[in-house]
Amino acid sequence: MRARAQRAIQECRRIAAFTEEPGRITRRFLTPPMHDVHALLTERMQALGMNTRVDAIGNLRGLWQPPCAGKKRLLLGSHLDTVPDAGAFDGVLGVTLALEWVELAQELKLPLPIEVIAFSEEEGVRYATPFLGSRAVTGTFDKSTLAYEDADGVRMDDAIRQFGLNPEKINEAILHEDLLGFIELHIEQGPVLEAEDLQLAIVEGIVGQTRLGFRFNGQANHAGTTPMHLRRDALAAAAEWISAVEAIAKKEEGLVATVGKIDLRPNAGNVIPGQVELSLDVRHMSNRQRSHWVRHFIHEAQIAAHKRGVAVEWVQKLDQQAVDLDRFMCNLLQISLEAAAFPVKRMTSGAGHDAMVMAARTPTAMLFLRSPGGISHHPDETVREEDVEAALLVGRKFLEQFAADVS
Amino acid sequence: MRARAQRAIQECRRIAAFTEEPGRITRRFLTPPMHDVHALLTERMQALGMNTRVDAIGNLRGLWQPPCAGKKRLLLGSHLDTVPDAGAFDGVLGVTLALEWVELAQELKLPLPIEVIAFSEEEGVRYATPFLGSRAVTGTFDKSTLAYEDADGVRMDDAIRQFGLNPEKINEAILHEDLLGFIELHIEQGPVLEAEDLQLAIVEGIVGQTRLGFRFNGQANHAGTTPMHLRRDALAAAAEWISAVEAIAKKEEGLVATVGKIDLRPNAGNVIPGQVELSLDVRHMSNRQRSHWVRHFIHEAQIAAHKRGVAVEWVQKLDQQAVDLDRFMCNLLQISLEAAAFPVKRMTSGAGHDAMVMAARTPTAMLFLRSPGGISHHPDETVREEDVEAALLVGRKFLEQFAADVS
Repeated sequence: MRARAQRAIQECRRIAAFTEEPGRITRRFLTPPMHDVHALLTERMQALGMNTRVDAIGNLRGLWQPPCAGKKRLLLGSHLDTVPDAGAFDGVLGVTLALEWVELAQELKLPLPIEVIAFSEEEGVRYATPFLGSRAVTGTFDKSTLAYEDADGVRMDDAIRQFGLNPEKINEAILHEDLLGFIELHIEQGPVLEAEDLQLAIVEGIVGQTRLGFRFNGQANHAGTTPMHLRRDALAAAAEWISAVEAIAKKEEGLVATVGKIDLRPNAGNVIPGQVELSLDVRHMSNRQRSHWVRHFIHEAQIAAHKRGVAVEWVQKLDQQAVDLDRFMCNLLQISLEAAAFPVKRMTSGAGHDAMVMAARTPTAMLFLRSPGGISHHPDETVREEDVEAALLVGRKFLEQFAADVS
Repeated sequence: MRARAQRAIQECRRIAAFTEEPGRITRRFLTPPMHDVHALLTERMQALGMNTRVDAIGNLRGLWQPPCAGKKRLLLGSHLDTVPDAGAFDGVLGVTLALEWVELAQELKLPLPIEVIAFSEEEGVRYATPFLGSRAVTGTFDKSTLAYEDADGVRMDDAIRQFGLNPEKINEAILHEDLLGFIELHIEQGPVLEAEDLQLAIVEGIVGQTRLGFRFNGQANHAGTTPMHLRRDALAAAAEWISAVEAIAKKEEGLVATVGKIDLRPNAGNVIPGQVELSLDVRHMSNRQRSHWVRHFIHEAQIAAHKRGVAVEWVQKLDQQAVDLDRFMCNLLQISLEAAAFPVKRMTSGAGHDAMVMAARTPTAMLFLRSPGGISHHPDETVREEDVEAALLVGRKFLEQFAADVS
């Protein structure tokens, strides 16, 4: 198993070499290096006896159909696109591990068809719209996005054509029937497993998310000639609010709230800030709790602003509902962890994944692998060999159990 | 006097039309519109019987030498350059009012020579170095700045030549002797007089100033996958510190402290801020108090950072000592205010002025005029006719008293 783990990691590193930017890993949706990734993985899939195709949105799909088995199949997979200056494992490891799982199923001679889907687009970098691959597969792709243009003015339908695919045939990507479920293997991209000294976790839900934009309007003024009591300092109001958001979220289990972006006007050392724009990102597994805390944070902004004669306004930019993953699939992962003698950890994912989209179509769960340092979306992103091996040991138990349950 | 006040204001508005940018008032050091300003003011000075010249740094100077008077002279003046997109009165009003004072002295037949200096450069916009005009006049001009380049790559000495002046003759700008003192009339550029319903104030000192740059180094991380207790949020630390700075300065009479600039990395809504850079501007009339509070603010930054596993570093960028203006000149202004039946207000200036440089050479004081709305460095900057009239009424009393005292 250690050799398999090494191979899965090695394959991620080989794929990382296919990039738009020499020296950095950047591989957006349907860019030329994606052809090279498809060629490499197609060769590997075919060596495993899988039938391969690239669907019209650019998902690479490989079907392992065991002799004398039915048509109902398990889906495995993750995505091949990356953010700019990415690491080698986000998404890609879920594909290379899926192929190792297929090989395990073959060695165990399980009568279980498996389709591996290497999604073409999850990060949403090129067209500012995530999950294009899984949306096409689940029949929830919005065709109006075909007219979107990337930063170079290339329409999405033209990008599909330039990649050698036919945008008219998006519907042929849809999974219609014969589905048993979907498992996505993915690095955690956070520090929780490392902090708790665990290798793996079952993901039983993906948190809902609200994004808001706040604007504090005070009065820009001379930093030397305006006494403290005559100021309407927009940044002082915003700072009190940022502290309040942090203090509240720290007290509330399961809530995360982040002010990640701040823009000041005029942003000069000798001028009292007249206007501050900030982002607020709020996530929670309970949609009701999330709404409650968002209202609370808005109220805190009003309090901090009002004290200083500063006005505050806000706009909601995203309101994404939480997604519960499938209880049966999660329980089966738990049984597999126990059978392979790993401690059981269930958690929610604070980030979105293709599994979120797939869950609406078929019973879905995820297995997280520990992220050293919690680092992701960064060249330092990595994964430990023993954790990949753990995912293979759990995979073998899962496939045996799953094949037995569905046969 | 009302007609004189109207004329002084009218002249500022005419000068405002001489600008580098149509539709906005922008008149940097030795740019072409400064020629037009000099032409207008030279004509006015000569009509008053003054001897005029432009010295080698570009200060326009006019000397009124009454018949049968000695050589010792009072200096009056302010600056003609502006910030980008400026108002019409910052600096310029101090020049047009000085000429009205000269006319008053002439009408009163005072045996008092007066030199009006219209300084060429105070704001420091073109060469990022303020007070070039008053530094040349006081013999504190640093000749190495002649090699500085502006944003277009024009060296200062070349700019001087292009304006028709000789950079070799900077020393001829120096005031050597026969000085009685210097008065600068200037708009307050702050909200204090308006808030206290006063028209004028005597400036008895210019605060000292410390500018620092702070950098909080935390850890950038995913806003969804990183629980609150595992974060090292640089912005949360900075926000607590900004609030502490504001709270402390609000409690301390005479202290102003401003965080005016903030730059975040990566500055993305879904990423916990990893690094925050901020400016801190601290001003106080007491150099000792200012040092004390700067140390205190640094300590507060360490506390806010330490709580969150965030590192903080800082660098001092400016340490400008406070300048006391001349007690005799201030008292004479106070007597003049009382004689003209205006309430007496003494204050410190939170902004720098040419008077700060002149004070090292000759007894200096300033008279502030109320700034409606406290607005300056902005096209909405204005001044009230009755306040300009008040400055003329006080001027007449001052000139009478001053001429009597020095004769």
